This record gives sequence, structure tokens and C-alpha cells, in this order.
Amino acid sequence: MSVTAAQGYVAAGVAAGVKASGDLDLSLVATDDGRPVVAAATFTSNKATAAPVQVSRRHLGASGGRAAAVILNSGNANAATGAAGIEAAERMCAGAAHLVGCNPEHVLVCSTGLIGIPLPIEVIEKALPALAEARSSDGGEAAARAIMTTDTQPKQVVIEGDGFVVGGMAKGAAMLAPNMATMLAVLTTDADVDADVLQAALRGAVAESFNKLSVDGCTSTNDTVIVLANGRGSRPSHDAIAAALTEACQDLAAQMAGDAEGATKVVRITVQGAASTEDAAAGARNIADSQLTKCSWYGQDPYWGRIASDLGSAGIEFDLDRLSVSYGGLQVCRGGVTIDHDADAVREHMAGRHVDIVCDLGVGGASDWILTNDLTHAYVDENMGTS
Amino acid sequence: MSVTAAQGYVAAGVAAGVKASGDLDLSLVATDDGRPVVAAATFTSNKATAAPVQVSRRHLGASGGRAAAVILNSGNANAATGAAGIEAAERMCAGAAHLVGCNPEHVLVCSTGLIGIPLPIEVIEKALPALAEARSSDGGEAAARAIMTTDTQPKQVVIEGDGFVVGGMAKGAAMLAPNMATMLAVLTTDADVDADVLQAALRGAVAESFNKLSVDGCTSTNDTVIVLANGRGSRPSHDAIAAALTEACQDLAAQMAGDAEGATKVVRITVQGAASTEDAAAGARNIADSQLTKCSWYGQDPYWGRIASDLGSAGIEFDLDRLSVSYGGLQVCRGGVTIDHDADAVREHMAGRHVDIVCDLGVGGASDWILTNDLTHAYVDENMGTS
Repeated sequence: MSVTAAQGYVAAGVAAGVKASGDLDLSLVATDDGRPVVAAATFTSNKATAAPVQVSRRHLGASGGRAAAVILNSGNANAATGAAGIEAAERMCAGAAHLVGCNPEHVLVCSTGLIGIPLPIEVIEKALPALAEARSSDGGEAAARAIMTTDTQPKQVVIEGDGFVVGGMAKGAAMLAPNMATMLAVLTTDADVDADVLQAALRGAVAESFNKLSVDGCTSTNDTVIVLANGRGSRPSHDAIAAALTEACQDLAAQMAGDAEGATKVVRITVQGAASTEDAAAGARNIADSQLTKCSWYGQDPYWGRIASDLGSAGIEFDLDRLSVSYGGLQVCRGGVTIDHDADAVREHMAGRHVDIVCDLGVGGASDWILTNDLTHAYVDENMGTS
Repeated sequence: MSVTAAQGYVAAGVAAGVKASGDLDLSLVATDDGRPVVAAATFTSNKATAAPVQVSRRHLGASGGRAAAVILNSGNANAATGAAGIEAAERMCAGAAHLVGCNPEHVLVCSTGLIGIPLPIEVIEKALPALAEARSSDGGEAAARAIMTTDTQPKQVVIEGDGFVVGGMAKGAAMLAPNMATMLAVLTTDADVDADVLQAALRGAVAESFNKLSVDGCTSTNDTVIVLANGRGSRPSHDAIAAALTEACQDLAAQMAGDAEGATKVVRITVQGAASTEDAAAGARNIADSQLTKCSWYGQDPYWGRIASDLGSAGIEFDLDRLSVSYGGLQVCRGGVTIDHDADAVREHMAGRHVDIVCDLGVGGASDWILTNDLTHAYVDENMGTS
């Protein structure tokens, strides 16, 4: 089901041979009749934008926010590949358009894998007939598997709205193996939504889900989230479609955080009592991106002094004398100094898979949060080489 | 010699018992007659400022930039320790003033070690008579040893100017074990320099040395660099004292980079062809702080695609099509795509202890550089816990 849960969509995943392992590596999501429907997308902010991102952005602009299909490959990011990369991405769209029966501009394209290696486009083109053959309303799981890189399991979601359905798939090995850090998601819905509403709802959903996952502070060259809406179901309010997309994206983001094979912990950091939401977000991110604080979580060490230091260097309004820090609801620091606390209970919380840290800055009323992982030997192992 | 190389200074290092190991942990640098001399300092920008930094800053302000002694301890950072921490830092100064024979305001204080643990001031006070006893013009090495945390060797330098000498000591485990990341340095000189000239020269020297070392993007709560100038030697020009201080600080910074026990490589990243020096510095720092790029160096992998991604997300003027990247002078990327290169020679360069990476952005004429290390299993080991 997943990305084909809403009526009117088909999907497929095949092994084209981009991955040397022979695993599934080519994926398609399309409308069942090849007709373009309302589409919206958000892309990476990295200026080293991969070819598929450039091509998808151009197609979405040229079509006025409509698409009939998304073609995706894993095993190669088609990033830092120059003019040949752009041509390869266009050829992927043209090939998909031919088999779906639409205009190439109505095809969006995503790639994920290593950067700076020419995309073997002939290998992909050779597999297109098999991909066309395989597409069906049952093809969601194969499609989700074909976009995996170092993910250990496919990530899928289905959200039932009032008279409409949102289905989706995602890949994000970001947690652990950011050598292939790209985060991709494709969502489909049968809701009847205007293009501007869909774009706004998607932007909000991404801000409250994928953008609150931070593993190592890196932004990929290829990050893309796409949603298609074919209008066969009910016409939800802006709030209703926004809520459904947010729920779907948060579910997928939580699956990513949970699929951190080499990480031993999922850590949620909340910064409250901040002067502004921006300050709260920046403080939480500075903690989440701190290599050495991440190592201390791996060691199950509630070293709040390091967190105080991370907050002090975050460039936000901060007064150490007002800081409180708690782990799993157990306060260990108040007024910027260590306080008596149940060390055994804190140790027990730190030993679990989910760690919950709340920092109260005591300087205002704003808050924000972020999800991250610990930094482990396995992270180093996975990122030591490209092979 | 080192910090006592210039005429008119004494130093000492003793084991007070702050460190459970029994290693040297209390250090003194003072004028030989207890008289205050011209002093300048630079302190951490972290807002979670440790008590000794607050006290030293206040003393330097109250004295109008004069000091007779610096007292330093390792084993405890006296940071996030509240009012008791401030009192403890003041007591360290008062104790040192008593034994040197000067005003407490003429004493500066530094601490390095764990954050958030009350400083055992009684232990330190009990050791002050022994510290007084031990001070001599031969005490430089003991003083340098007593400020070590995870450093594997003391860091000392002597620079001969024209008619004056600059000596110094530093500790910086920052490379590898930033749980105790503080970077401390004390320099002494017999040059005859005005306070404003000394402060300006020190600021410039730090900018071109310690501030160009980045290990994990963290700024400590305790970072301090202090210089004393007693005027017994010649009166150098601004340029001459600036050059000598810069040479001394660069030598100490290089010793820190080289003392990265758990790191296997010292990596110098140069970004040139940038739109501004700020852009070049921000680009170099974004690469140096990228967890996964640091892992790839550990794996001796010249993965320039990841560097392109780091530059693309650095918030600087960037056009992938103009990017060139070289390792050890061997160009592997030009115009944003991989080019034919001698892969064996690149591999050989990556296998060495010193890796030299040059990125040319091709959008301007500015450049800057930074020194950093790889991210290794040993880094994770050292930072997993506080004990």
C-alpha cells in the first residue's frame, strides 16, 4: 500500500543494476491513467544542487505545479556530475514519460547515493520496460525498497483523512550513514486540493517533521519531498490537508530516527524558556550537532555541563545562571549549577533507547525541539569510506 | 625554559590533588619580584563563561591591564559552578597574591577539566605553600605539565626577537578529547610594550593560530590566552612584537594539532577563489566541522563530492560549476565534476599523517585556511564518558 494507498496511483520497484549488490534500485510512482495532477515539492537548500533537483524544479515550474509521475533511483546521487548529469536526469524523465504516457515535463526525478560519480543512465534506460511492466496499485512496497541506501527497512505511511487518504514512502539513512545522507519522500493523496494550498501545506509539514531531524548538521545535495494530489476524493480544508500531511511526514521522520542501525539512541532535545522560537531552534540544533555531546550520549553519560557549553556558544540569548536541564523529566541542573537528583534514575533513563532532554533557558517564553542520535563507533565505520 | 625563557619570570607546577590520578594539576607563572607588569588576554566567546574567565576579565579591567601572576589548575573547569565557583576563583587569586606578594587584582586565573563540578578549593589552597616553594626560573616545564588534561605532552615555545624573548606554554586536548576541550596558553616576554599594543598584537596572533584550529566546532567555556610583558628587554615595533607573538602562538597551535593521539591525521583545508575572506573562512570551517567528511579522512578516502556538499551548505557564494578540489596538490575535481587524476598518488597522500586539501571556488580572489583532524574510533572512545 503506502504510496499507492490513495485511489488512482500505481508504483513499482526493480533492480536496474545501478547498485553493484543487485538490490532494488529503480522506483516509479505514477497516476494510474498517466494524467498529470496537482503537485508540490520542497527541495534541499544546499547550493551544490544535484541534477535531479534542478530538473524537477524546472519541470514543476514549467508545468505550473502538475505532475503525472516520479522516477527515483538509489545507488548514485547524480550530483556534481555537470552537464552530463543534467542530461541523464532529463533522460530519466523522458523515459518515464514514454512509459507512463505523459509529457516529460510532467515527470519529477530523484536520485540518492554517492556524489560525483557519473550516473549510468544506459543501465537505467535498459530497465525502464521492466519498471513499466511491474507498476501496479500493489507496487508501493517495492517502490519504497528501491529507494533505500543504508536504510535497514522501507519507510511507509498511510493516513486516513475525512474522505481522502494520504500515502507515502521515504528513505533516510541520514541518521547513520550520511555518506548517502539524502532524504527523499514521495506522498500521494486523492484529496482535491489547489496547487497553492498543497504547496503551503507541504512546506508546513516538512518544517515540523523532516526539518526537525538533525544527525550531523549536513544538508544533502539531493533532499526532496514531493506530493501528488489527484482530486478523486473529498475536498479537505487547508487545515485538514495540512494536518494529514504533517502526520504522514512526522510518521516517516520517526521511522527514519528509529532506523538508525549504528546509532544506539534517539534523542529528543527541547529548548524552552527562550527569547524567541529562532533562539530555541538554534540552541537545540547546536546541541544536536555537537560531536562531543553526541559521544557522551553513546556513553550514557548525562553530562549537562557540555550542554550548557553548547547553549552558550549557540549565538542566542543565554544566561547560565537561569539555566535548568532535565533528562527524562529528572532535573539535574537549576540556576546553572548541579542540584541533588536521583542519579540512578537518570542513569536508567540514559541507558534506554529514547532519551528526552529539556533545557529551560529562563529568559523568555518560546520553545522548539529537534530529534537526533548519538555518535557511535558504527557511525565512524559507516562513513570511513565510500565503498 | 618555555614560559620562563624571558628574563624576570618564575613558574612552578605541583600535584595538588584535584586530579584523582595524582598527576601535576596546579600551575603558577609569576614575575620574579612580584611586581605587576603589562598584561593582555583574549577569552572565550562562549556565553556560558566559566568563573575563572569572569574573574580574570574583571581583574584585568580593574588593574588597567596589569598582572603579576597567573594561577592555573587542571582536573576541574570551575564552569557552571555558580556563585561558589566565582568565590573559589577569587580565593585562588587571593592565595596566589599572598604567596607572590601582590594585590589579588594583579592575579589572573585559569581552570580546565570537567564542567559543572564544584572546584575543590580547599585542596588547591592546601597546595599553595608547595607551589610557592617550587617556583623558579626553571619551573616552566613543570608548569606546562600541570595544565595538561588529555594532552600527551607539554606544549612549550621560545621565540627570540631582536633584543627580546617570547616564551610560552599551552594545553589543548581540543584535537581529540573535547570533553575537556579548553585551550589555555600563557605567554611571557621581556619586551617593553604598551598595553594597547600588546592587546592588539595578541588578538592578531590568536586569530592567526588558535582560532584556525577547529576540531569539532565547539567553543569551550574556559578558553584563555594571556601574555605578560615586563619591559626589561628592548622596545620592539608593533610589527615586531606582533610577529613574535604570532610565531609563538602558531608553534603552540601546531603542537596541539600534532598531539592528537586519537586522531590519525592533521588536515589543512584552504579555500581560495572566494568572494570574501569571510566566505573562505566559513567554507573551510564548514568542511572542518563536517562529521562525515572527517570520517572519510579517517578512511583515507578522497571523497571530494562530500566537500562540494559541505561548501554548498556553508551559506557562502558558491557555484558548483566553478569548483576545483585538490588533495596534496593533485587536482581531482575541476568545473564541479571529477577529472582524470593519478588515483594512486592521491591515495598515497591520503594515507599520510598530513593531508592538504585546497578548494578553489572560482568566484573571487579571497582565501583562508583552517587546521583540523579526522574523526576516529578513538575520538568516540575518549568522549563517551566523563570518567
